[in-house]
Amino acid sequence: MSSTAVFRSRLDRAAAAAADAGFDALLVTPGSDLRYLIGAQGGSFERLTCLVLPADGSAATLVVPKLELLGYESVLVDGLGVEAATWVDGENPAKLAAGLLRNPKRVAVSDFTPALHVFGLRDALAGVDQALAGPVIRELRMRKDDSEIASLREAGAAIDRVHARMAEFLRAGRTENEVAADIAEAILEEGHAVAEFVIVGSGPNGASPHHSASDRVIEQGDVVVIDIGGPVPAGYNSDSTRTYSIGAPRDADVAGTYAVLQQAQAAAVAAVRPGVTAQDIDLAARKVIADAGFGQFFIHRTGHGIGLDVHEEPYIVDGNDLPLEPGMAFSVEPGIYQPGRWGARIEDIVVVTEDGVESFNNQPHELVVLGE
Amino acid sequence: MSSTAVFRSRLDRAAAAAADAGFDALLVTPGSDLRYLIGAQGGSFERLTCLVLPADGSAATLVVPKLELLGYESVLVDGLGVEAATWVDGENPAKLAAGLLRNPKRVAVSDFTPALHVFGLRDALAGVDQALAGPVIRELRMRKDDSEIASLREAGAAIDRVHARMAEFLRAGRTENEVAADIAEAILEEGHAVAEFVIVGSGPNGASPHHSASDRVIEQGDVVVIDIGGPVPAGYNSDSTRTYSIGAPRDADVAGTYAVLQQAQAAAVAAVRPGVTAQDIDLAARKVIADAGFGQFFIHRTGHGIGLDVHEEPYIVDGNDLPLEPGMAFSVEPGIYQPGRWGARIEDIVVVTEDGVESFNNQPHELVVLGE
Repeated sequence: MSSTAVFRSRLDRAAAAAADAGFDALLVTPGSDLRYLIGAQGGSFERLTCLVLPADGSAATLVVPKLELLGYESVLVDGLGVEAATWVDGENPAKLAAGLLRNPKRVAVSDFTPALHVFGLRDALAGVDQALAGPVIRELRMRKDDSEIASLREAGAAIDRVHARMAEFLRAGRTENEVAADIAEAILEEGHAVAEFVIVGSGPNGASPHHSASDRVIEQGDVVVIDIGGPVPAGYNSDSTRTYSIGAPRDADVAGTYAVLQQAQAAAVAAVRPGVTAQDIDLAARKVIADAGFGQFFIHRTGHGIGLDVHEEPYIVDGNDLPLEPGMAFSVEPGIYQPGRWGARIEDIVVVTEDGVESFNNQPHELVVLGE
Repeated sequence: MSSTAVFRSRLDRAAAAAADAGFDALLVTPGSDLRYLIGAQGGSFERLTCLVLPADGSAATLVVPKLELLGYESVLVDGLGVEAATWVDGENPAKLAAGLLRNPKRVAVSDFTPALHVFGLRDALAGVDQALAGPVIRELRMRKDDSEIASLREAGAAIDRVHARMAEFLRAGRTENEVAADIAEAILEEGHAVAEFVIVGSGPNGASPHHSASDRVIEQGDVVVIDIGGPVPAGYNSDSTRTYSIGAPRDADVAGTYAVLQQAQAAAVAAVRPGVTAQDIDLAARKVIADAGFGQFFIHRTGHGIGLDVHEEPYIVDGNDLPLEPGMAFSVEPGIYQPGRWGARIEDIVVVTEDGVESFNNQPHELVVLGE
């Protein structure tokens, strides 16, 4: 199927889903929803760009600043059926968008539309209910097609190559920031378009799951959590975590605790297949960790969906009874965190297949001891 | 002044400005406003983090997911007076934020808060008016202090070093994407934390001001617009454009047109001093270009403020009668675009000084001919 046909199909399915959900239109600003629907890249800035997609099946219109129109030439092609409505500085683009709809009662706005534009559209559509478009669009986005899966596989292999090179970057005497800068370059060298995130959590910093990197100097005996990723040129993201040790771990409890974590991560991956629920996967990891007495140190959900966004549906979390289907892709990333001392996490991106699971990350899962 | 004292002062001034504007509180999610107010880095994701800053001067509270709390330790310090209110998956963080306010009537939400959280806060604060916090916070942010100016100067020097190396990357036979990937690495090597944007607009692509990079192969005779930048570790951004030619330009009109552009950019920079309005700077560039008969080919404003965001106030645009003050920093970047053939732009970041202007970008402004 041509990319135009793929996008046309997505627009039709999104419009139909919007109608089913009781919306008169989807209003989608630049970001991954817009990239998914029509292939347009870029983010949202102070000038409004917005796809107005009526739920009744009539033509979609891209409201776009005139000076950015050339950047959208590749998506405003015959066959896709999206028209452009341009505006220049001094005009009110939200009014332009509002004027494209006839007597709307309820519109859905893409989840990451900035407040700046949410309020502009609210004021231009006085009396019209605004709600989130996410619940509509996620039903499409969380079921990946073969081309999306191929991109995620490519991204997984690229980030695996960065982890395979970790001994080049990570050693005692360097700061986390220095290591992170080298990793960021390697992420680009190995085929990513952007080094989206680089977490280097050494020693006590590894006990903070969302620590980024700091000027802490890495020491002999440190356990170091390396959580890295970003999009390949097609826009689909990698995200993989491995845990390293600089020489033998300083803390005597690392080996035993890590073995539990490794078992938990493997159990969760092994549980993935169609029909199993998202929370079943979370519980598969959580049970192993809790049974070993570390439950209180596993302080986050087991995973998140991934695609054009690093975090998207389906979330692998207690309470999510969504049955998994082939084509759903997500992270499996339990962690155990010992406050003030060290932390460990293992993360693979996997996809549900017709009869089980495929992992896009295949570097060894053991604690990797460097510098010996 | 310690950084804690700087942030405390910003919080106090922001609360006072919010009160003056008739708000009961500022609700600020991660992004450059939050970084400006308390030094917290990071972006907004699906889990709500939000600084609730009452306008009456009472204590500010950071609503934050429990698992991200350690990442905010450096800002939750004695002396700043910001407390934390944590939540875990399954709880409603917007309700937690709403409960921190007593009988609010009107709240201001940071401009780039995602719709996801705008609507969450709207629903938790039923009947409370929501408006943008931008107009309040921009009054602080657009007047840079000495430390902010030093960071912008550092960023300018870093991106100048990348432009100085352009002959390493840019030559006939390579694609725009290949050149852009090398430039992105150089942006990191020369001291940036992130290669935020890399525009390589060769030949006809240079005529689209917001073109990014493509698989177009650069040819002998092409004019190429290179517009690049990103934040240094302190968060302040560079943004500089130079125009290159691969050998002698193919089109006979390049030299004459470029001379007009160079004169226009210099005239606009020379016009910068306290008391002159933002639109005066725009007009200084526009008049030179219009007088030479190219007015219709200069299709955007002359510049934008810069700091923690690449685009922020003050905008250098017709209609903005804001008088410039010392400490205001912005781009001066006129362009001339010949659709289907070539484009050119020259961009420096400048700051208003007590008696004139300082430019942070100082690479030669002439058309740079490479590969001869």
